[in-house]
Amino acid sequence: MVLIITSISGLISILVAIYLFFYIVRQERGTKKMIEISEAIKEGAHAYLKRQNKTLAIFVLIMAILLGVLLDFEVALAYIFGTICTAIASFFGMAAAINANVRTTQAAKKGLDDAFKVAFYGGAITGLSIVGMALLGISILYSIFGPERLDIILGFSFGASALALFAKAGGGVYTKTADIGADLVGKVELGIPEDDPRNPAVIADNVGDNVGDVAGMGADLIDSYIACMIAAMILGRALGINFILLPLLIGAVGIFSSLIGMFFVKTKKQNPGRALNKGTFSTCFFFAILTFFLIYFLGFGNVGLKIFFAILSGLIAGIIIGITTNYFTSIDKKPVLKTAEAAKTGAAINILSGFSYGLISVLPPVIGICTAILISFHLVGIYGISISAVGMLSIVGMIISADAYGPIVDNAKGIAEQSGLGEKVIKITDRLDAAGNTSKAITKGFAIGAAALTVLSLFAAYSELIGIESLDLMKPDVMVGVFIGAITPPFLSALLILAVQRNAGRMITEVRRQFKEIPGLMKGKTKPDYAKCVDIATKGALKELILPCLLTIIFPLAVGFLLGKHALGGFLGGSIFTGIIFALLMANAGGAWDNAKKYIEKGNLGGKGSEVHKAAMIGDLVGDPFKDTAGPTINTLITVMSLVATIFAPLIIKYALF
Amino acid sequence: MVLIITSISGLISILVAIYLFFYIVRQERGTKKMIEISEAIKEGAHAYLKRQNKTLAIFVLIMAILLGVLLDFEVALAYIFGTICTAIASFFGMAAAINANVRTTQAAKKGLDDAFKVAFYGGAITGLSIVGMALLGISILYSIFGPERLDIILGFSFGASALALFAKAGGGVYTKTADIGADLVGKVELGIPEDDPRNPAVIADNVGDNVGDVAGMGADLIDSYIACMIAAMILGRALGINFILLPLLIGAVGIFSSLIGMFFVKTKKQNPGRALNKGTFSTCFFFAILTFFLIYFLGFGNVGLKIFFAILSGLIAGIIIGITTNYFTSIDKKPVLKTAEAAKTGAAINILSGFSYGLISVLPPVIGICTAILISFHLVGIYGISISAVGMLSIVGMIISADAYGPIVDNAKGIAEQSGLGEKVIKITDRLDAAGNTSKAITKGFAIGAAALTVLSLFAAYSELIGIESLDLMKPDVMVGVFIGAITPPFLSALLILAVQRNAGRMITEVRRQFKEIPGLMKGKTKPDYAKCVDIATKGALKELILPCLLTIIFPLAVGFLLGKHALGGFLGGSIFTGIIFALLMANAGGAWDNAKKYIEKGNLGGKGSEVHKAAMIGDLVGDPFKDTAGPTINTLITVMSLVATIFAPLIIKYALF
Repeated sequence: MVLIITSISGLISILVAIYLFFYIVRQERGTKKMIEISEAIKEGAHAYLKRQNKTLAIFVLIMAILLGVLLDFEVALAYIFGTICTAIASFFGMAAAINANVRTTQAAKKGLDDAFKVAFYGGAITGLSIVGMALLGISILYSIFGPERLDIILGFSFGASALALFAKAGGGVYTKTADIGADLVGKVELGIPEDDPRNPAVIADNVGDNVGDVAGMGADLIDSYIACMIAAMILGRALGINFILLPLLIGAVGIFSSLIGMFFVKTKKQNPGRALNKGTFSTCFFFAILTFFLIYFLGFGNVGLKIFFAILSGLIAGIIIGITTNYFTSIDKKPVLKTAEAAKTGAAINILSGFSYGLISVLPPVIGICTAILISFHLVGIYGISISAVGMLSIVGMIISADAYGPIVDNAKGIAEQSGLGEKVIKITDRLDAAGNTSKAITKGFAIGAAALTVLSLFAAYSELIGIESLDLMKPDVMVGVFIGAITPPFLSALLILAVQRNAGRMITEVRRQFKEIPGLMKGKTKPDYAKCVDIATKGALKELILPCLLTIIFPLAVGFLLGKHALGGFLGGSIFTGIIFALLMANAGGAWDNAKKYIEKGNLGGKGSEVHKAAMIGDLVGDPFKDTAGPTINTLITVMSLVATIFAPLIIKYALF
Repeated sequence: MVLIITSISGLISILVAIYLFFYIVRQERGTKKMIEISEAIKEGAHAYLKRQNKTLAIFVLIMAILLGVLLDFEVALAYIFGTICTAIASFFGMAAAINANVRTTQAAKKGLDDAFKVAFYGGAITGLSIVGMALLGISILYSIFGPERLDIILGFSFGASALALFAKAGGGVYTKTADIGADLVGKVELGIPEDDPRNPAVIADNVGDNVGDVAGMGADLIDSYIACMIAAMILGRALGINFILLPLLIGAVGIFSSLIGMFFVKTKKQNPGRALNKGTFSTCFFFAILTFFLIYFLGFGNVGLKIFFAILSGLIAGIIIGITTNYFTSIDKKPVLKTAEAAKTGAAINILSGFSYGLISVLPPVIGICTAILISFHLVGIYGISISAVGMLSIVGMIISADAYGPIVDNAKGIAEQSGLGEKVIKITDRLDAAGNTSKAITKGFAIGAAALTVLSLFAAYSELIGIESLDLMKPDVMVGVFIGAITPPFLSALLILAVQRNAGRMITEVRRQFKEIPGLMKGKTKPDYAKCVDIATKGALKELILPCLLTIIFPLAVGFLLGKHALGGFLGGSIFTGIIFALLMANAGGAWDNAKKYIEKGNLGGKGSEVHKAAMIGDLVGDPFKDTAGPTINTLITVMSLVATIFAPLIIKYALF
């Protein structure tokens, strides 16, 4: 019965997404020029995804064989199933985004409200399809294998994470390669505007928004969503069947709340940012109420209220993180203003300022998470932590929708500028885009907080599965494990940043070459070779993601087999502690630099083209791989490492050296 | 008997330092111009230290009253005693440095060997006096109060740390305020050379080298030295009197090894960097041999060899950290070369490159420390970790000497340039300075590694004193404690960086004002108002250090009293894990940027004045507060926090809310 409800919820979510997709494609695409640009973006995005999925397929196949041989055939199948489910959903979401972008631009001719509607629905497709697929997949597996074989759902989760890791790391390298390449040569060296059609990297940049942000962020949140659900199910097993099913039902409630919340997302000629926030807050509100009744009707008795408050604490922690992120990255708040002002004394001071505020921004979210941990553990024990993570992540349908809106309007703005539409249209797309940047920052904060609670739950699930009673920080193996775990996120971040740097170097060389060798390009008389730049971004991204992905799997296994299960427990703990710090630092410092630059571009402190602006642009470039490559990948990294540990737990018990 | 030996060792160390001081002041000071500059530096340094010590005195007095009222009158006295001992030693060391700088310049007229001798002996005064004072102080207190009152030595250690914190944070803000102020306006905006006498901030910059580097680094290492000794003594109490005394004796052996090692520091017209390294390595060598015999004669029996290897593992970890730091910051190794090359594509890529290598550089030291932990714990238990820290820190006399050499030759070079000495002299001081930069980087790595092992020992000592059997990472209070502890070092770093930024802003405004308002300054016809810049650096540094210093004490107390002793244990653990990561990251990224710039200044990639050079200078400026303010202060921060926890343990047991 329960599983039928959750399966149907998942299906409804997918069906609404499909309905919205048809709504989108029915809209007009505009002028020939617009269609041409949008086709180029589509082509680039497809080309990238095709190659990424080919590489992913090989990777997944090898992993599946290993899983099948070493562990269990069914787990291996579930692993493949997980990858395919999420791959389909995120592919569908991206298809929606690259259809919605040009239609948003076209709708902007009619006005803000129409354009916003197209863009938001475009984003909602990603949110709904991905959440629906996840819940449906888990429900199916659970109804087949039952509570005894939760390891199979772990395999499903691991599969989803494999996709997420590829999408985040690969997409992240792709998008920033293109962005930095386009900006450094175009804006900084030659002084031509952003999204200028003369820039050879401009299409690659637009493609990057889609493969990095839409596909990437969707995949990231969904892998946390699945992982925290299975962690809660594992921890609930000791408490009874109701506790295993509760996460699934909360997921279903989350889907309905998101659908209701979306009704409230309407601009009515107002600020589009406020419309998005209204959607998020009303989703939270309905989710809280519906969950209360759900728990009441499930008859948990006295524990029910406690569980409800545990869920609520997670939800509130999520909101706190969102608000903090918003404060530290908003264009009209102190951190960004101070960072912009610091650019008056040069790029170095600007960078130091943004970096410092990024570090400071870690404090409030961590306190929020700690409070959620203390409350939910106090109320329901370790299960409480995992259920509070589920609470936080259940509204993910709405969150992803608001997030996927961002790259759509970013593209829409780019298309408007490249196809030379009038001032009025560009202004509308500009307003839509500004709202997208803020909602993107909030989502990132939310994703990080959710990942932290998820990984804490996985950490508990790992201990439960491997039979660890306690992880004594005063024991040398645990201590060493924490140490090694703690350096893993920054170490892997460094690899990703260097990857972006290397690949951006190739891109810069190519863009410079085209401007030098293609006659008439600077005057706009000839067209640049867009495809070549798309190709460089694609090849580089795929080449560069292999090492970090492999290390994500090798590190926990090496610690587990060489130093033992306690060390591995410490390792997971350590990776969470620094993972969240670096993820928040990178996301928020990056956001602060970005908006400091935008603040100056609005005409403050000398405006565009001034020395102050140049200094702020350097800060923004430093922030690019921080906030869009390394930072967001960290969430997935720590989730994957925890999943590896949990899945391989039986082998580690058997074969560990210590 | 033992205490007589250790007291005499301490005294000998101090006497040698005094002897060397008289050797230094007997040397010639050179031309009138040179004397004038050196007097200005001396004046500025004294003015700063006087004010710093006044602020420190108030701070210490208040803390002492609190300690006396809340804890114990004798602990309060020991606290004051600790501050005074280290303050005298570091004041003496700085006095030596500001006398040695001009004499090094003068000796450079005779040749490299003579100049090196003056500079190294000048540095050795700091090393020997500070180590001697520390060992003497501990020996005296222990002989009065005996093994029952080790808390009194904790008070002594806390006092030394109070000085260290002030010296590092205050001196760090001072030196970088002046450095950034001088560089940004002088080198970047006006294009005049470094150390140019026309620059109003040049004297403040020279003063900064002394108050930041000599006084600061000496104080930093010595506070780790004292802290790890007392931690080992506390942990040794359960094992017997010999185990309590061993750290003191190892300290004595360390002093003699350093004195022997110093004989090997001779240039003979060779590379001065190699001479310094020879000193360090031969100190290590003699220390290992002497310690072996010491332990043999103490009759530890079977355990003796195990203790010896525990000590050795610490020593080797120290060497590994030194070698790694050297690799990641050396001007002829891949990280620096790649970072320099990245500057070709602009400042942003240069910064990302240095930052990434900084993150990567954390891995080898952490593995070295982990290996030392595993080996020493396996051999001798928790006492092993503390004794391996003692082993690592015992050669600190030599390490500080090599380190204090750096700012002396830096000053010597500045004096040579400002007083217009010939090409030949400047070249010699240049060679001396280059060696100083490398030895500085190595010392920093060493200081961080030592701090990590020290704080781990303190962490164990805290647990021992407060009676914690285990610190279970799966318990929510420990988990929350680790989380909060983990964000503390980055948070406080951010405060310090922002402090530098604010104060540098004031300095920049003043330097710009002087160039604008003082007629003929740019042409070298009139003299700038040096004193005004010195004043800004001084006032700002003292104002800015208060908040971080207070928080360092408030954070652990708040966690302890609000969340309980287990949470506080987790807090200390968390602060170590991220403390070492951020300290190494900041030190090594800063070093890489600095040397990337120097590599370009040598004429590579376009050389001085090129666009590549400008980009690299921005990286260097970002690195300044990283490597010389925030990074080095972190060691002291985590030591102080551990000491606060350990000293207030009795109160926390009584009054904690949980």
